[in-house]
Amino acid sequence: MINSPTLLLDKDKCIDNIKLMVEKANRHNLTLKPHFKTHQSAAVGEWFRDFGITSIIVSSVSMARYFSRNNWKDITIGFPVNIREHELINELAGTVDLSLFVNSPDVANLLDQRLSDPVHVYIEIDTGSGRTGFLPDQTDQIEHLIEVLNISDYLNFKGFYSHPGHSYSARSVNEIRAVHQDVTSKMQFLASGFSKYDPVCCIGDTPCCSVSDQFEGIDEISPGNFVFYDLMQVMIGSCRVDRIATVLAAPVVAKHPERNEIVIHGGAIHLSSENILWSGNRIYGLPVLLSEDYFWNEPLNDGSYLKAISQEHGVLKCSDELFRSLEIGDLAGILPVHSCLTAHLMGEYYFLSKFRNK
Amino acid sequence: MINSPTLLLDKDKCIDNIKLMVEKANRHNLTLKPHFKTHQSAAVGEWFRDFGITSIIVSSVSMARYFSRNNWKDITIGFPVNIREHELINELAGTVDLSLFVNSPDVANLLDQRLSDPVHVYIEIDTGSGRTGFLPDQTDQIEHLIEVLNISDYLNFKGFYSHPGHSYSARSVNEIRAVHQDVTSKMQFLASGFSKYDPVCCIGDTPCCSVSDQFEGIDEISPGNFVFYDLMQVMIGSCRVDRIATVLAAPVVAKHPERNEIVIHGGAIHLSSENILWSGNRIYGLPVLLSEDYFWNEPLNDGSYLKAISQEHGVLKCSDELFRSLEIGDLAGILPVHSCLTAHLMGEYYFLSKFRNK
Repeated sequence: MINSPTLLLDKDKCIDNIKLMVEKANRHNLTLKPHFKTHQSAAVGEWFRDFGITSIIVSSVSMARYFSRNNWKDITIGFPVNIREHELINELAGTVDLSLFVNSPDVANLLDQRLSDPVHVYIEIDTGSGRTGFLPDQTDQIEHLIEVLNISDYLNFKGFYSHPGHSYSARSVNEIRAVHQDVTSKMQFLASGFSKYDPVCCIGDTPCCSVSDQFEGIDEISPGNFVFYDLMQVMIGSCRVDRIATVLAAPVVAKHPERNEIVIHGGAIHLSSENILWSGNRIYGLPVLLSEDYFWNEPLNDGSYLKAISQEHGVLKCSDELFRSLEIGDLAGILPVHSCLTAHLMGEYYFLSKFRNK
Repeated sequence: MINSPTLLLDKDKCIDNIKLMVEKANRHNLTLKPHFKTHQSAAVGEWFRDFGITSIIVSSVSMARYFSRNNWKDITIGFPVNIREHELINELAGTVDLSLFVNSPDVANLLDQRLSDPVHVYIEIDTGSGRTGFLPDQTDQIEHLIEVLNISDYLNFKGFYSHPGHSYSARSVNEIRAVHQDVTSKMQFLASGFSKYDPVCCIGDTPCCSVSDQFEGIDEISPGNFVFYDLMQVMIGSCRVDRIATVLAAPVVAKHPERNEIVIHGGAIHLSSENILWSGNRIYGLPVLLSEDYFWNEPLNDGSYLKAISQEHGVLKCSDELFRSLEIGDLAGILPVHSCLTAHLMGEYYFLSKFRNK
């Protein structure tokens, strides 16, 4: 029985999400290298393994250690190398087939001095997100870095990686596809300019990987969020709301008829402070009704939304119907705005399945 | 040696913050019942104990269990009772001097049936935050609830509690004081209307407790954030920036001279996604320079700020001076926007002290 805030995970939906992405990758002859930063769970990782996935990406050295201990042997740390962690990186390089992101000759030189096992190296390309990596036209600097890598016995240049984070500014399938087309053409430009090194091209973002069907010049994809999806992805246009595989079960602790609001135990330490504009309102989540066995229906679409959060509290603006449906002591379901952060905060899942063994 | 994102805690500043609030409480003959949701740390709790503090408030049953195991004997769970957790509440009631927030006769009746040890009960008053509790003029409903409590052998009405969360909308000492004056007058009105029950009046928010010196009719204060403070409190007017006792140490992983930006390992899973408007910019934190022993200076006040975060990345917009000061592999210090959430996410501290034993 669930008595405190608990993250529900619909295993069937989640596996369907995985299956659709695996099928897309197969259709386009792409290696699917899923980003495990979203779920951070060895158990969920096994559902990927069942589809033949062997190569994964994570966002930190500590996450790489966790998955290496759970028998993953091909791991990419999808974050620019933090040279202060060279000892842990070295340890991992001796254990798994490790790939790193290296974006500077200085870091390459330091790694070369400190590694005792070989690693693969991706160079990051900033195709528009403005976060990390070289701009596609910084070809002289990229060439120089590849030369530095090629001198090293430990650093094997593998190819180019881009996380098109600017796809999160899209608000429709067409806008996502426009970003994707621009990103792939930039990666193609690089692949052809550096063809003598036979680079692998990897892109990783859930919006582009979810809705695009043009992957010429791309070898690998590494989306992460698609395993659960969330309201932000629905807003962007990546998926429909019924693909969201995770919901926070939050106990109802107060009802305020004078303002049609319900207070739940579910706040920033459960859902994160992420919020989006949704039908004109700033929302922190959308309510769903939970059945007795904790499955959920689609959101009511009646103007109800999570309007405010503090550390532990959530304030649910309710339609008359929702207000009547929930009593103190019931569990409200909340679709998260950003499932990666919600999953990180909650740290564990309550698995639900109608069709598969738990 | 610090190699990955680490939350630094300046013990001297923290103890000074505690000391100032203890002195204020003593000066006004108030019981200081500090909110431990900010630090969530038994070690930091001991620093309060050194000042004679014996009564604390927490924001969840699980936090109450944690502190009861660390020898705290007088604990208030500062969150409306979640009746689904009655077994855990019962367990606590048998172990410590427990106070609860009960805002409805239904919850009172359910608790009465399920408790086997007595507890104290605060009734919450919504003095303007619009989150939980009765409005001050709902006196009939309050009277009815007190009567329900008084019938029970287990529920001892203790008094009124208000968290004036609307003080967070203030942007100056004068605005905070105006909120405080309004809150205290509402609490005085209730105390006098219900004087036959001799209610205790408790208010708890860091802005009001930090800057106010008028506490007539108030018996207890329960601020939490003041133990660390943060940029949000500076923005509100609760304190100066040099009172902030905690800083994230974040490794520098990339430098982008073409846009004067530095990328750090420090993102939403370290700092939270909280952000504020600061000198016209939307910021997720402010950079400070760390000394070799990890102490920090005041922020540079030169237009540098943490302009964007993702799950693990932070993008630091830099002045020329800051850009030159930080190299890849260095540690940047980041003053947090909301220290409660940062502390929750980081889960542990690296204590610094110049004047006291570690």
